Formats: sequence, C-alpha cells, structure tokens
Amino acid sequence: MRRSQRLPLITKTLLDRPGQLISLTELAQCFGAAKSTISEDVAIIRDAFAARKMGRIETVAGAAGGVRYIPGLSDEAIVETVSELCEALSDPQRILPGGFLYMSDLVSSPTLMSRVGELFAGRFYSEGPVDAVVTLETRGIPIALMTARALNAPLAIVRRASRVTEGTVVTMNYVSGSAKRIETMSLSRRALPPGARVLIIDDFMKAGGSARGLVDLMEEFGAKVVGMGVLIATAEPRQKLVKEYVALAVLELVDEERREVVVRPSGWVERLREGGPGP
Amino acid sequence: MRRSQRLPLITKTLLDRPGQLISLTELAQCFGAAKSTISEDVAIIRDAFAARKMGRIETVAGAAGGVRYIPGLSDEAIVETVSELCEALSDPQRILPGGFLYMSDLVSSPTLMSRVGELFAGRFYSEGPVDAVVTLETRGIPIALMTARALNAPLAIVRRASRVTEGTVVTMNYVSGSAKRIETMSLSRRALPPGARVLIIDDFMKAGGSARGLVDLMEEFGAKVVGMGVLIATAEPRQKLVKEYVALAVLELVDEERREVVVRPSGWVERLREGGPGP
Repeated sequence: MRRSQRLPLITKTLLDRPGQLISLTELAQCFGAAKSTISEDVAIIRDAFAARKMGRIETVAGAAGGVRYIPGLSDEAIVETVSELCEALSDPQRILPGGFLYMSDLVSSPTLMSRVGELFAGRFYSEGPVDAVVTLETRGIPIALMTARALNAPLAIVRRASRVTEGTVVTMNYVSGSAKRIETMSLSRRALPPGARVLIIDDFMKAGGSARGLVDLMEEFGAKVVGMGVLIATAEPRQKLVKEYVALAVLELVDEERREVVVRPSGWVERLREGGPGP
Repeated sequence: MRRSQRLPLITKTLLDRPGQLISLTELAQCFGAAKSTISEDVAIIRDAFAARKMGRIETVAGAAGGVRYIPGLSDEAIVETVSELCEALSDPQRILPGGFLYMSDLVSSPTLMSRVGELFAGRFYSEGPVDAVVTLETRGIPIALMTARALNAPLAIVRRASRVTEGTVVTMNYVSGSAKRIETMSLSRRALPPGARVLIIDDFMKAGGSARGLVDLMEEFGAKVVGMGVLIATAEPRQKLVKEYVALAVLELVDEERREVVVRPSGWVERLREGGPGP
C-alpha cells in the first residue's frame, strides 16, 4: 500500500475513535507497513491538522504509547458555530405561547451538536481526564453524547423518574430555580465509577436549579465536577444557582408581542472573536 | 500545499460531514488547489476507502455536484460489532431484580453507538432518502442521533409527555405491548416536514407496542416509514406488533435464579456472518 492510500485510511481510523490511544503496532499491522513508516504518516497528518487547526493529533511515546486524535474547534470555528446558533435562535417564528422558544430541532441537530460536542471537548480538555459526561434527560442528551464521544468518555443520563431498568438508583429532590417546583432526579448506582471526574453538559440554563441539582447529585456519588457546559443560558436572573459554567449563547429577550428574540454569543465567545484568550 | 497534506485534510472534511454533498469548488478554495487536482485527491481517498470497505465516497457529477462520504460498516465489522454487543449483554452481573437487564451503559456508549449508527445508516441507505430519524425518549436517543448523523438527517424525539417548549404537539395514546398499560407519546408539529420519509430507531423491542405506536403516530403526521431498526429484540413474544424491523441482537433468556443471560446476533447478522446476502 502506498503512502497516498495509507494517509486517508489512517486519518479515518483516528477520527473514528476520537480520544482513543491507538498503538503504532495496530496501525502497522492493519495497513501492512513498518512502524517507522506509520510514524512518518502520522507526523504528516499531525502537521496538516495543526496547520489548519482541525483538531490535534497527539503522539505518546514508549511501549504503552501510540497516537490519538483530540477533537477541538479553532477559535474562528467556535465563533462561527455560535454565531450560526444565535442566528437560528433569533428567528421570531420560534416564539411559542408564554414566551418560550422552540429549539428542539437545534438541540437535536446531529450536525450542529457534533460541532458543539467537539467545541466543549476542546474547551474542557485542559481540565484533565473526564471519566464521564453527565446530563439530565431529555434535551441535553444529544449535546452530551457528542461531547462524550469527542472526549472518549461514557455518558451518564440522569433520569427525571427512576426506572426499573436502571437497577439501584440514587434519587434526589431538588427545587427548580425559576418555577420553584419540587422536581426529582435519579441516577443508576452503576452509571459512575467511585471518585469519577465528571463533566456536566446541558442544553439550557435559566436560574440553574437543575444544574445545581446535578452538582449535588454528583456529591452523593462522590464524583468531582471538573466543568459544566451549557448551550444557552438566559441573561436573567443574572445570579445563577451555580457559579462555574461555560455558556455558548445568552438569551437576552423573548418578546412575544413584538415578535422579537435577542440571543448573543456569551462573553467567552465574544473574547475569542476579539482574539483574546478564553477565561 | 502538497498532496500528502491535502489527503488527511480532505478526508477529515468529508468525515466531519457525513452524507453531505461538498462541492469540489469549496474544497479547491479551502485547500488552495485546482478542482482537477482535488478531483484526483478524492479518487485516491475513494479507492482507499473502497479497498478496505471503510464506508464509501460518492461523487456526483455536474454543476450541482460534489463529493460525499456515506458511512457504513463492512459485513465483517457488522458481525464484530454485534458480537461484542452480545458478549457485553451476556454478563450475568447485568441481571436486575425482576429479570430485567441493565444496559444503559451500552445504549449510551458513544463509541458503540457511533458504530451502530453507521451500521444502521449503511443498512437503510438503499431505502432511499431519509428526511428524519424518529425515536422515543430516552434510551433510543443516542442510537438514533448517531444514525441521523450518519445519514445527514435531522432527529425527531418523541416525548412521553407533552412539553410547553415543544409548541403545538400531536399526542397519542397507545397500549404497551407487554404490560398492556395505556401510555402516551407526543411529538411537536414542527418536528417533521409534511410527507416526510422517516426511519424509526429504538433500543429495545419486546412486544412492539411502542414501535406500533410510533408507526401510528407517523401516520398522523402523513409521514412514510421507510424502515425500523432496533438494537435488541426479545425472542418472546415471537409475534411482534410490527412486521418489518431490523434487529441486531435477540435476547433469548434472562434467568434470574441461574444467573444466566442468553443474547445472540439476529438472523440478519447471522446470515452476514455466513457470507450470505442480507434480506
């Protein structure tokens, strides 16, 4: 097999298994070439990705070493993705009675959510290894799944009611931040290993009641929350029930009467646009 | 930029947007090469993928043409994926009180589900274009999302209760096939375009009550069901409430007392293993 044939195949093997360490031995056997040749191929792929900021290829030296693809968006791609999201959300046809906004199509869009997943993976990669991505059913699942895929971590779905198919569960009551209703969340004992480092991902945050609930639930599991990412946070209330989170977009206003929606990129994304460093 | 640099980048561009037609003009502008050069690059990638049966690269001629990546697993990869699934499910530690089986970790595994999504996409690709992948919350969402991604189709999530954030919904009662309970399912009017061709994807089928409900709900939307894929179907009852579906694995037995689980690849997968054609 020639290099020009191996390059697409090695690229595909790496991209199909984001975050997974693949040994040079496996690649060498799979594509019938010497490890030194594969090593050169990988260097070409690594440099090409680096030049275009299309994620990163990491090589780990030594006997247990190998190569792995770390997804992530460039600053420009982050700004572009969030701008598209804001523009799509600003469509007044999305306004529902009561001043709600229809966004189910966006939060379950495979194309958009795989980009957002890579975005969050890149954003939280520096926080260290993530043992599980945690989300609350239902609408957070697509974003959380794509983030988990990009981080090569399992996904743990917190249910709103306990199910017989979840086995032994930890069930917790919490107060929804805005409506002040008592709600229930429930997670299988088997869903997280002891002492897990978890990343919480959700689609929407208003007062932060369910985010707060998830943080408290993680404490019950002895898990450490290493980060929290939400797609959209509302501007009001300014004081959320959680302190540390990364939002991509801020919902400023839904005016049912004037048929107006105002959504803007979050401060973090704005700073990327201006070329500054993230927080 | 040299060919060896372009090959990984074009491969990545195609894989990041499965099922999407990308024009040669876009690739030429993006990677600073003539369209004829890009066309040669694409032919190299296409042949390499074809030789290893790692999905397909399709080129569409003409002014509105371009190139697209069609995910799909080789027969060997399908057999391997389903065998791994069956082996994982057969672990007696999964047995829950009442003879249920814990499988939440598997149905939400990003690695396994992205392979299953490519598997279903390849399996149903010949049924013609799919306008939406439809699933019932919660556990079917990861498989359905990954299938939708591989088919470049939106995902429509049917809810078990209607939500204010879904706008106008169609709500339907149905009878769960095994427990004979009345259940409710609900889908936003906005979730499907009129006359949509839909693929139904779910994680589990026992008697097929919720599958039947989804088929009936699609009728209310004037949508045409072009296929149905489920990860695991139970061997009993043999007569399901839906006739046409593709299951990957069959759950034969969960014996709580003897701590035994029997799961086998479905007939379709068995025939692939024996080298025969699928149905």
